[in-house]
Amino acid sequence: MKENKVYDLIIVGGGPCGLSASVYAGRSGMKTLLLEEYYCGGQILNTYEVKNYPGFESISGPELADRIQNQAKNLGIEIKYEKVIDFDLTQKIKLVKTQKNEYLAKTIILSLGASPRKLGIDREQELTGKGISYCAICDGGFFKGKNVAIVGGGNSAMEDAPYLTNLAQKTYLINRSQRYRAQATLLNHVKALQSQNKITVLENFVVTKLLGDNKLEGIIVKNVITDIESKIDIDGLFIEIGRVPNTDMLKGKIDLDDYGYIKTNGNLMTTCDGVFAGGDVIQKTLRQIVTAGSDGAICATSAFEYLHQNFDEKDI
Amino acid sequence: MKENKVYDLIIVGGGPCGLSASVYAGRSGMKTLLLEEYYCGGQILNTYEVKNYPGFESISGPELADRIQNQAKNLGIEIKYEKVIDFDLTQKIKLVKTQKNEYLAKTIILSLGASPRKLGIDREQELTGKGISYCAICDGGFFKGKNVAIVGGGNSAMEDAPYLTNLAQKTYLINRSQRYRAQATLLNHVKALQSQNKITVLENFVVTKLLGDNKLEGIIVKNVITDIESKIDIDGLFIEIGRVPNTDMLKGKIDLDDYGYIKTNGNLMTTCDGVFAGGDVIQKTLRQIVTAGSDGAICATSAFEYLHQNFDEKDI
Repeated sequence: MKENKVYDLIIVGGGPCGLSASVYAGRSGMKTLLLEEYYCGGQILNTYEVKNYPGFESISGPELADRIQNQAKNLGIEIKYEKVIDFDLTQKIKLVKTQKNEYLAKTIILSLGASPRKLGIDREQELTGKGISYCAICDGGFFKGKNVAIVGGGNSAMEDAPYLTNLAQKTYLINRSQRYRAQATLLNHVKALQSQNKITVLENFVVTKLLGDNKLEGIIVKNVITDIESKIDIDGLFIEIGRVPNTDMLKGKIDLDDYGYIKTNGNLMTTCDGVFAGGDVIQKTLRQIVTAGSDGAICATSAFEYLHQNFDEKDI
Repeated sequence: MKENKVYDLIIVGGGPCGLSASVYAGRSGMKTLLLEEYYCGGQILNTYEVKNYPGFESISGPELADRIQNQAKNLGIEIKYEKVIDFDLTQKIKLVKTQKNEYLAKTIILSLGASPRKLGIDREQELTGKGISYCAICDGGFFKGKNVAIVGGGNSAMEDAPYLTNLAQKTYLINRSQRYRAQATLLNHVKALQSQNKITVLENFVVTKLLGDNKLEGIIVKNVITDIESKIDIDGLFIEIGRVPNTDMLKGKIDLDDYGYIKTNGNLMTTCDGVFAGGDVIQKTLRQIVTAGSDGAICATSAFEYLHQNFDEKDI
């Protein structure tokens, strides 16, 4: 079903960037639709404890998401829970296609976020949800008293480690090198757990094979220096090796960089006029809640300015 | 007095950028000093009600500032209340001079903010605090039941208008044109007050003269189209015509743009190695609490990376 209504702005994706854009769009008086597939919050829904968003010493990800979502709703933003499957960005009035409907808008904000990077080994897809997880906060509870391993060396892996150590019988951390991209406080916490024998840290190791028939029962790891392989019996494998931007739908429609991130200018406009983008989906320096929030504010403000420069006042 | 201690990071200025940088610096484990002249918060200290910071539907500026300051303090950040008067940024170890002391640091974040722009007319300085104010939230209370005028057409002027209308006997809003740079919701609120005769809006007018001996007693305004001048009897004049960056101390030390804003690269490093800058003091698209918070996060993260690339691990 195609609606004839033309929105001033459609925001695609309800993570921190999309939610912040909604708050700013609401305050600017634009007739705005936010499209979100599941539940607003994006990756912070998987964050047990947010401690680096200025203003909250500690808050759960879902609670922070709820707070921003309510803030936007009370400013008159319309939210629909529909999966976006395609765009037509070639005309002055843009079209956003979901599994249920088609919507028209004068401006678009793409806050599509990023998804977990896969290990890329055999049977990874097949065993996902059967021992393999990309979110300790979501799935950790299934592994109470069992053995688990985390793969990764960044903030996400270091955040998962203490969380899983508390739940599991035995926890391994597998890092492909001896270098860590994590913040010092997070890393120090893991090192402290290691010195208390609460976690086994395997440096210079990679996972080469997944074992088990209908569910994960173990993994083969290889030392990248000696090439020696070892078997570890585990029930859960948490893969935290980074993210990839959700831009498959946009290929050929706007310019992406070599990694698939959306290219934007200083006003966060993409290479398509009237289409803005922010948050984890764009090429940027630092991917954090507060930087996504900032992007959302800039996107909505830029969209507002574009609207007033490119459409008659009577149409707005 | 010169301390021999060398900080990993000195943050100069405790507004939203400096406070957010403090939170990130604290979490990264850097030995950090925050220098603030008065009280942390910067311009948000003058904001009665913050409604556009994602996560808070409504919070007072000072309360938000306090929350972020406590968050930083609990992460081990040292805060000193001293006025910074000079910098030596020419060496690898940088020097920050305050009215009391000299401090050394491996990296610097300049979050110096911006100050109110002056009207630039005769006796403005002399009558400041004697009827002339740049902050309705700070000084509005002095004008209960009196007559006041606001000069400006942006968000700040529109925020002041309802606030002062509630307090004053009679409120004027003076805008040099018929255009407003304010958000629609703020502007609509003022237009509603106007239709209720609660505020008198003078469009296409400028203030040309300040009247009164020891205190402000009135102003002369001129219609910029007809050139006709009129006298208005007022006790208070609130000037809200924009901001200028606090960069006088930095002239000749790092590159500034034609308006005095600090030039930075994508990592928010200035033209001086190891010196980063963010918030209202830099050349940027949008000056908001959340964009300043984002800058602070990026500055602290960039400073952390610079530190690890340019100093021996044993010295950090």
